[in-house]
Amino acid sequence: MKIKINELQNLIMKAMSKKYDEEYSSRMGELVMFGELSGRVSHGLVRLLVGGSILSQNPAGKVKITKITKLSSMIEGNGNPGMLVGSLACDEVMRIAKENDFGIVGTRGSHTSSGCLTYYLEKIAKENLIGIVMAESPTSTPPFGGIEPLFGTNPIAFGIPANPRPVIFDMGTTAITFGELLNAKALGKTIPKGVALDKQGNETTDPEKAMEGATLPFDKSYKGAGLSMMVEILSGTLPHSCYAGIDEDRGWGNTFMAFSPRLLSDVDEFKDRMEKMIDKIRNSKTKDESKVRIPGEKTIDTRDKNLKLKEIEIADKIYELLMEAIKHV
Amino acid sequence: MKIKINELQNLIMKAMSKKYDEEYSSRMGELVMFGELSGRVSHGLVRLLVGGSILSQNPAGKVKITKITKLSSMIEGNGNPGMLVGSLACDEVMRIAKENDFGIVGTRGSHTSSGCLTYYLEKIAKENLIGIVMAESPTSTPPFGGIEPLFGTNPIAFGIPANPRPVIFDMGTTAITFGELLNAKALGKTIPKGVALDKQGNETTDPEKAMEGATLPFDKSYKGAGLSMMVEILSGTLPHSCYAGIDEDRGWGNTFMAFSPRLLSDVDEFKDRMEKMIDKIRNSKTKDESKVRIPGEKTIDTRDKNLKLKEIEIADKIYELLMEAIKHV
Repeated sequence: MKIKINELQNLIMKAMSKKYDEEYSSRMGELVMFGELSGRVSHGLVRLLVGGSILSQNPAGKVKITKITKLSSMIEGNGNPGMLVGSLACDEVMRIAKENDFGIVGTRGSHTSSGCLTYYLEKIAKENLIGIVMAESPTSTPPFGGIEPLFGTNPIAFGIPANPRPVIFDMGTTAITFGELLNAKALGKTIPKGVALDKQGNETTDPEKAMEGATLPFDKSYKGAGLSMMVEILSGTLPHSCYAGIDEDRGWGNTFMAFSPRLLSDVDEFKDRMEKMIDKIRNSKTKDESKVRIPGEKTIDTRDKNLKLKEIEIADKIYELLMEAIKHV
Repeated sequence: MKIKINELQNLIMKAMSKKYDEEYSSRMGELVMFGELSGRVSHGLVRLLVGGSILSQNPAGKVKITKITKLSSMIEGNGNPGMLVGSLACDEVMRIAKENDFGIVGTRGSHTSSGCLTYYLEKIAKENLIGIVMAESPTSTPPFGGIEPLFGTNPIAFGIPANPRPVIFDMGTTAITFGELLNAKALGKTIPKGVALDKQGNETTDPEKAMEGATLPFDKSYKGAGLSMMVEILSGTLPHSCYAGIDEDRGWGNTFMAFSPRLLSDVDEFKDRMEKMIDKIRNSKTKDESKVRIPGEKTIDTRDKNLKLKEIEIADKIYELLMEAIKHV
């Protein structure tokens, strides 16, 4: 069904109003809407409503800054949703980096997904800062050579200031996401070959067996597994959330880094070079004379297009769940 | 042939003595020896002696710091070898990060490989700093969807303080290195399927055609290509070396970042967690009950084992080339 964006925003706020105050609801609402508007719906309403959702959390209290230095802050999520903790961490890292040219913010103690990392990187890059954001989550991927899941789906994303829009590269380090497993299971479908193992370490195309087993790194090799381990260390072990399946009661972790290009270059000159580079990449040779796509472009353009239309398509079932949630407010 | 490590070090110093002063020779000699001692010989003597080698360079002058802020330095390589520029950049980033908890150093204007990045990360991590090092080099890999090489082989490496040795993850973002292409060509061998394209964008197993064409990203997908692009931006476009085949006269680029774990955690507690994590990974389930290997371990252990033996094996041909080079001093 089609729904006006304004109306959907109001419904989302209403659904959260029992559990979260207006500021918190509005922060999470922005991320949920970003998922829907940008076509990355696995980071949208489904995270508000279904399974270990925003609405199912019971936070122990407010999000708190527990450590602060000139260049850094540590944030305790207190059981709040990842999208809320991420939103506050993103503002904090931008504040620090704008003052000092570099900032790093770690978080722990959130539950549920931090949302589409592209959302944060766009904000950071629009402030003329280079951003790197990583998110640690419960164990799903084994180290290289192993079959026991010890690392999360562990996305890493980079945001680079550029005109007319930032370059944003946002990748998960697993071959298949947990959401895709859930979806395949719900629809009674199999999953692709070579993306998951069963409990015994054999490849499986059965989503249920994969959930009991492990998902493979995106390249099925030591490089993807190593990159996943680095994300686990930098956004789990370092801020001391849950890490490698240890200290699971400390919740999920995130690390936000931001720095100014002016540490190494005049900012405008850097952005001019980025423009030349993007232009060269877009018009570089292809086999079929198509244009090369720039990372992040599709996500941002889809969001902008939908904003202009002022309405979007959402699944009927999701609308029903949203109305159901509001009934219980 | 076997050769005493001391003797080999002296020969390396002697070979460089005509072109470089003692400090410069000693810095590069350490990196060349690290390649040989750690079993990563494609970063060893071959880089001193063969092709676009350290000995074939004609630097325009000394390496110079051209910009300095509290948290950063920019280094102009002046046509010096990457291993020299890297060695100086590594010292500089450690100095800055030890004083300020974070440092970033960019370089441009080097030629030839920066050597085995693991060498730098071990040094950084042993100072209880987390390091991220990236190296940009001439175009070899196309953007995703393209067939025109615009990004270098672009390695990225991470170093994490831990006991008894740092965890170091060092990966190239291409499926095959330029050195492997050279080697296959020299030996009249083919290269594996699916790692390179010819000039027309068709897959090829002919190393010569691959050299005229392009090498693929390590995972042959948008993730590897995107990661390669991020390395190109952060260690090429940002420090304004050559980037995406633009401004080739500005030489190769590097970016060194280092920061203290104490920005987010007590350092000893972080290292304790690293120890628990490494232990858990090493002893995690495998299909055949073998132990899981920790990234960087093999490289460092091979180096240490060879240092203890006080002698190593080098190829006869390489020894001949070294003696030949010394004859011309």
